[in-house]
Amino acid sequence: MNYRMIFNIIGKVLTVEAAFMLPALLISAFRGETAAVIGIAAAMVIMLAIGVPNLFYTPKKKDIFARDGLVTAGLAWIVVSLLGALPFCISGAIPNYVDCFFDTVSGFTTTGASILTDVESLPMGLLYWRSFTHWLGGMGVLVFLMILNPLSAKNSGENMHILRAESPGIKITKLVPRMSDSAAILYLIYIVLTVVEFLALVCGRVPVFDSLTLSFGTAGTGGFSIRNDSLMSYSAYAQWVVTVFMFLFSLNFGLYFLLLHRRFRQVLRNEELRGFACIVAAAVILIVWNTWGYFESFGEALRHCAFQVLTAISTSGFGTTDFDRWPQFSRTLLVLLMFCGACASSTGGGAKVVRVQLLFKSVWRSIYQALHPNAVRLIRINGEVADDETVHSVERFFMIYFVVLAAGTVLISFDGFDIETNFTAVVACMNNIGPGLSGVGPTRNYSAYSEISKIILSIVMLIGRLEIYPILVLFFPSAWRK
Amino acid sequence: MNYRMIFNIIGKVLTVEAAFMLPALLISAFRGETAAVIGIAAAMVIMLAIGVPNLFYTPKKKDIFARDGLVTAGLAWIVVSLLGALPFCISGAIPNYVDCFFDTVSGFTTTGASILTDVESLPMGLLYWRSFTHWLGGMGVLVFLMILNPLSAKNSGENMHILRAESPGIKITKLVPRMSDSAAILYLIYIVLTVVEFLALVCGRVPVFDSLTLSFGTAGTGGFSIRNDSLMSYSAYAQWVVTVFMFLFSLNFGLYFLLLHRRFRQVLRNEELRGFACIVAAAVILIVWNTWGYFESFGEALRHCAFQVLTAISTSGFGTTDFDRWPQFSRTLLVLLMFCGACASSTGGGAKVVRVQLLFKSVWRSIYQALHPNAVRLIRINGEVADDETVHSVERFFMIYFVVLAAGTVLISFDGFDIETNFTAVVACMNNIGPGLSGVGPTRNYSAYSEISKIILSIVMLIGRLEIYPILVLFFPSAWRK
Repeated sequence: MNYRMIFNIIGKVLTVEAAFMLPALLISAFRGETAAVIGIAAAMVIMLAIGVPNLFYTPKKKDIFARDGLVTAGLAWIVVSLLGALPFCISGAIPNYVDCFFDTVSGFTTTGASILTDVESLPMGLLYWRSFTHWLGGMGVLVFLMILNPLSAKNSGENMHILRAESPGIKITKLVPRMSDSAAILYLIYIVLTVVEFLALVCGRVPVFDSLTLSFGTAGTGGFSIRNDSLMSYSAYAQWVVTVFMFLFSLNFGLYFLLLHRRFRQVLRNEELRGFACIVAAAVILIVWNTWGYFESFGEALRHCAFQVLTAISTSGFGTTDFDRWPQFSRTLLVLLMFCGACASSTGGGAKVVRVQLLFKSVWRSIYQALHPNAVRLIRINGEVADDETVHSVERFFMIYFVVLAAGTVLISFDGFDIETNFTAVVACMNNIGPGLSGVGPTRNYSAYSEISKIILSIVMLIGRLEIYPILVLFFPSAWRK
Repeated sequence: MNYRMIFNIIGKVLTVEAAFMLPALLISAFRGETAAVIGIAAAMVIMLAIGVPNLFYTPKKKDIFARDGLVTAGLAWIVVSLLGALPFCISGAIPNYVDCFFDTVSGFTTTGASILTDVESLPMGLLYWRSFTHWLGGMGVLVFLMILNPLSAKNSGENMHILRAESPGIKITKLVPRMSDSAAILYLIYIVLTVVEFLALVCGRVPVFDSLTLSFGTAGTGGFSIRNDSLMSYSAYAQWVVTVFMFLFSLNFGLYFLLLHRRFRQVLRNEELRGFACIVAAAVILIVWNTWGYFESFGEALRHCAFQVLTAISTSGFGTTDFDRWPQFSRTLLVLLMFCGACASSTGGGAKVVRVQLLFKSVWRSIYQALHPNAVRLIRINGEVADDETVHSVERFFMIYFVVLAAGTVLISFDGFDIETNFTAVVACMNNIGPGLSGVGPTRNYSAYSEISKIILSIVMLIGRLEIYPILVLFFPSAWRK
């Protein structure tokens, strides 16, 4: 284990995190929120005190192996969340540190699950920081780290270990030779899309601060809102804008690369994009049909259903209506969409559309082969043959996924909530959605859970966000051996 | 497709089914239950009218391929259930044919889910037949067919296709060279165990008819009782006897083969047996601890908890107490036990312990390999190396399993019950347990579901019982091509 390397990287991440807190500090100072100013400033000082010394602790060996990559990724997200939670705690806005940690993990993992019953009482600087964690988390602390990290330019192949849990699909790194260039373009696309959404909202007379925080939440497919009723009280226009951008941020960012390279036909032929669009369309139609009579007009029904479908499948977790009161078929469908999740290489969570497609192709093939044991049938995705190793890794992914879901549901069952609440709470955290059903439905929150359950759910969020491995390996003693 | 062969086999199955109805007819005749006598007799006539002509429709080619085997298995179970439901319907005991079909599928698949609110009102002959379907289903229509089928003696290798969905574990067929001999010994063990349970119950002053039907239900790990309160009103002694036999019928029958061959050490070292025993012990301890205070004494707590744990993991579905009212942790644990299921090659349903063990070993290995990409790590089960194909087939099994669960839960959600009810209903049917939680809890039943949902749940029971493939292939057009 290359500890010097890990400390050095985490030092950089913390320094950058402190820098990113500056706007929050300025907002609080400008608004005269004394407690928040103290909280944010103290957190920044602590981050820099831990981060800066580690900057000079340069690694002797610059090689990074699978193990180091995974452990670094896991640790970085945990440390960033542990310290990112400090402003809430020090300022007294959220008295309990476990609650602060839960909300911050929820922010960085772009989950959007909250323990706050009254969001609007938070100082503006903290509201900004809370929403901004979504935006930071969205593209991953490690992607922005990679731009800063000079190692990546040299050993781009080695650095890929950090992203090895990447799912099959378009390989962004194949489009641009150098890792750091890819990351830079990726980030540019992300910023441009965020700015466009911000402008679209502002043009629709949404207040500037609301537009900014909503854009952060949508870009990261997070789900934190600065209003207690999520998006219910925003205008229909604003809800439609967010719906469209939830769709756009759910797409594989490789597609935007392709668009920049004017490969339009390749984009339209992309199987995951088509699958995602079909699922969204089918779900909207089915739910509009199923909730017929719940809304006053077709337009209203379409708006609410499209919004809720996209908030579930993009794993954002905003809400414009209490979908927990919808008919059982719609509720069940929404839970399935939460499982499915967005496209690979997007800011969305969940299992990812391409994995679900591979899963169904594999299931189909195994039934076919039961009938015709001698038949050879290849699985194709995006026109390319998916080799056996890819198919098996997807199957293994789902296996671990279900094991974690089952374990999580059992572990939080001690708090005495019903199985629907516990199960959808774990599903909502694992898939980085936010609200579940029943006790954790869109108009409720996670505050009723015990501290130990909140910590378990935080770990589940991290497992889901980091595609399982980087967190699970931390529990393996062999990950820590020199 | 060898249609002559399929018709011939189904003809045999129906003739045997009619023969097995005779005791029910005699009981009803003896008790003077006119309607039941007419119902049973009419059903026997119809079975023989369809079955006997097909006996003479002998196949030209005696080869049986994977496709034929799967389709035969699937069709045979469906036809047997369709006709086995007739006595209830013709006698008027259960007016609706879909209800009769549901209960009969539930019987043959040893599920034990029922739509009857008042079991005790059924005529005795029908109660006998209902419980006897469990016993028949227990070892599988196809195993007893194989003894009767002269083909099996000649082409034992080919006949294995019918059982190809068999899980990894001790291969019974490896112990005795000829398939028909294996089947005969298997059946003998089954009969002896049933008789021993019957005698044990009779010695405990349980009425003879109750002892008989309870033994049928336990042997098949079914769950039908002839009392409305399942086993709640039986003596503690009777409950303990059933508990012990639920354990015994959950074991891999290959172990009894080994016992007969005096290979005691091999039995004790069997990894699946050890795993099963550990899971049962751990679950009993955890649930006794969790339900502390629900019972008056430790003995009572132990009895109820052991009974409920075994009824869940053996997928029997009897009940001695309303476990739906237990704390959430215990309820969640019971659902997990339902998923796990009994040992492979037993009469129990569920995923099977050995598959769960392979699943966990595979998950463990993939985390290990994420840390050490170059390490080679073999998966062992029962001291033998499980090859990759076995591991992948187990993973695929779980994949299809979850797809069927999700699809089933969505399809029955139109009836408007909550997700916990729907989900545990599908889990209880898929794993051939019987009662689920909430609306289908141990003191409730499936009568509230619509007819279409009952048909869907019947198909789910068959999918679960036949280890998925034989039913799913029936939906494939290529299964029906000549």
